[in-house]
Amino acid sequence: MSQLAVWNAGQLVTMAGPARPRTGPELHQLGVIENGALLVRDGRVEATGTRAQIEPLLEPNAEILDAAGAAVLPGFVDAHTHPVFAGNRAAEFEERNQGVSYAEIADRGGGIRETVRRTRAASELELETAARRYREWFLRGGTTTIEAKSGYGLSLESELKILRVIRTLGAEGSLRMVPTFLGAHEVPDEFRGRIDDYVDHVAHEMIPEVARHGLAEFCDVFCEPNVFPIEQARRVLDAARRAGLGVRIHADQFTADEGSRLAALVRARTADHLEATGAEGLAALAAVGVQPVLLPASVYALGLRRYPDARGMIEHGLAIVLATDFNPGSSPTASMPMVLSLAATQMKLTAAESIAAATINAAYSLNRGGEIGSLEPGKRADFAVHDAADYRELAYFFGRDTARAVYIGGRRVY
Amino acid sequence: MSQLAVWNAGQLVTMAGPARPRTGPELHQLGVIENGALLVRDGRVEATGTRAQIEPLLEPNAEILDAAGAAVLPGFVDAHTHPVFAGNRAAEFEERNQGVSYAEIADRGGGIRETVRRTRAASELELETAARRYREWFLRGGTTTIEAKSGYGLSLESELKILRVIRTLGAEGSLRMVPTFLGAHEVPDEFRGRIDDYVDHVAHEMIPEVARHGLAEFCDVFCEPNVFPIEQARRVLDAARRAGLGVRIHADQFTADEGSRLAALVRARTADHLEATGAEGLAALAAVGVQPVLLPASVYALGLRRYPDARGMIEHGLAIVLATDFNPGSSPTASMPMVLSLAATQMKLTAAESIAAATINAAYSLNRGGEIGSLEPGKRADFAVHDAADYRELAYFFGRDTARAVYIGGRRVY
Repeated sequence: MSQLAVWNAGQLVTMAGPARPRTGPELHQLGVIENGALLVRDGRVEATGTRAQIEPLLEPNAEILDAAGAAVLPGFVDAHTHPVFAGNRAAEFEERNQGVSYAEIADRGGGIRETVRRTRAASELELETAARRYREWFLRGGTTTIEAKSGYGLSLESELKILRVIRTLGAEGSLRMVPTFLGAHEVPDEFRGRIDDYVDHVAHEMIPEVARHGLAEFCDVFCEPNVFPIEQARRVLDAARRAGLGVRIHADQFTADEGSRLAALVRARTADHLEATGAEGLAALAAVGVQPVLLPASVYALGLRRYPDARGMIEHGLAIVLATDFNPGSSPTASMPMVLSLAATQMKLTAAESIAAATINAAYSLNRGGEIGSLEPGKRADFAVHDAADYRELAYFFGRDTARAVYIGGRRVY
Repeated sequence: MSQLAVWNAGQLVTMAGPARPRTGPELHQLGVIENGALLVRDGRVEATGTRAQIEPLLEPNAEILDAAGAAVLPGFVDAHTHPVFAGNRAAEFEERNQGVSYAEIADRGGGIRETVRRTRAASELELETAARRYREWFLRGGTTTIEAKSGYGLSLESELKILRVIRTLGAEGSLRMVPTFLGAHEVPDEFRGRIDDYVDHVAHEMIPEVARHGLAEFCDVFCEPNVFPIEQARRVLDAARRAGLGVRIHADQFTADEGSRLAALVRARTADHLEATGAEGLAALAAVGVQPVLLPASVYALGLRRYPDARGMIEHGLAIVLATDFNPGSSPTASMPMVLSLAATQMKLTAAESIAAATINAAYSLNRGGEIGSLEPGKRADFAVHDAADYRELAYFFGRDTARAVYIGGRRVY
């Protein structure tokens, strides 16, 4: 049995509130305790309050962390990342900024095709080493859980390899990982022109094998007319359902409403991206309560200007989620504070709305709303001490690592 | 006498090249040494090359730093910052994002007026403490020199107080500081409606006193029709010249070409911002070689979309500089890597162009081109070891602190 007390938190942001994802006015309920204190027992929150309230509960050998006036927040839950890949695309990024089109890069074997080739060629150990570097970046921003997608293998063997890397890193306990199988991220070269054959392969060979090994909780598909159109995407997701996996969808990144309609139809847990979503798509998502996962860092990094209509989604009563979309192509950032900054400056969300989207709402989108995403008695003691006196500073000061100490299950991991 | 050797730099970016600010094709000359090594003696660069080349020069007690494959770059020179102020404006930032106009905020005493009030009320020690926090943020991004402006005092006493804080921090040696007097940042409340009286006060009382104490190297003025119009700005700058100060100008942030024309007329060292500059202003700057200091982080943080025309400036043969504009109102970031990211994604500069703008060109804009901004024999050993294998990663991965070790004059400061 072990106890940890954190006190002198200038603000303890608990996110305490109703046991459901937050919408509308609830997005502003951060449950802030000024000069707050947090008591942890055996990895879970025992109590929150003032120092005077938790001191009577302290046992003689309790560890003490003096937050010295800093803001303490629940660990961010980053519900959309692609953290396992070989190499990076810094050179291609530069070419794209100089006006070379993505199609041109893809035609000569660049872009995702290059990452797939390199990831297939990499050993499990090489991928683990790269992913551990990125893991530290997530922690430095105060993230304690990520949803981690495969999708740079696109063959049974290499997708399993990626999912094993996610499992290995998750088991190390320094960053919680929720694995998602994304075999339908792109059609690999060997199936070029034979999308239905690849979809069959994903649906009938890859998904059952992934499920048999317990390597994924969710299945995702990149639904776009020129990648996996609605019909093919649906076949993948139906197979995922049959295998007992939850469903997430890359929807409407470039084309309006097909993906969001599919997400509503299959009652996906989330529809992710939604930059192009129009009124019809929004209404479809709202009708069945699919959670939108918004990825402003990919809009920024691609040099685009159309951000998802977060305000419209909130007005439709949707429980929005914010995530990094960390990946080597369109969103090379692992920083949730950067996403909060983009949400403020480009999407006009308040810091409270963004933080709810990045913690409790994200936790619910991963079926973990009862375990993480807030600091309430009984929940996992996942939290970060930030270099900030007020939670609003996390969205205001930007371009920096804000976390100074990060705990997962009451254990310091950064 | 002390020696330090750095080796196994995956890339040693020396910026070695002609002894003048870089324009056009020279912006791409980074002088990269693959698997490079750097030898430092008594705080200055003794040699650069490969490990084999510097090893014969090593003395028995030399300190060794193994960069383990990381990229080593000259410390960034951030040539436009406002780092000394009390409080912050996180609450106002949120209001502005929610649609409250800056004019409305200013009318009720907010905005810069609030920062001035709080900065006047703060003790020198309080300001030092706040500035030391921000100093660490600069270092974490690999910055080793900043130009530091006053301008939140707007009275003789409080402007001197701010400049003393800059002097104190600079003397601590953990971040080089080049002080700039910006008494003409705004007209203070007590001179409201009497701009000419305030300009007289700045020109005839403040500037001579600042110069007498040796508290500034440069004088800056916020030249905008509704702040300090060209005539008033010129009176300030003429006084600065008479007092022996160099001249920098906040020019064309919102209104085209007045500021840039003035900058050309008075042969300012730099014209800063230039988001609104048109063909006429560009031609004026180019005719006399004023260095443009571009501040994309303020465009981003204000939620605006008009970035300065960096490409046009390069084509005009101008030696562009990139800087953070760190300040609590329009640009709450101290991160030069964040500026490189904005330059890439929003302004379409290459990483090489940006890094030249953020090092050697910036050094020249501060009259220090012979001392800092590159790693060449005889220059100060100011450098950073970054979490990057290739310099292009600094502009590509974003929203993170990239420096893992920072040295100023051969001494580790972070």
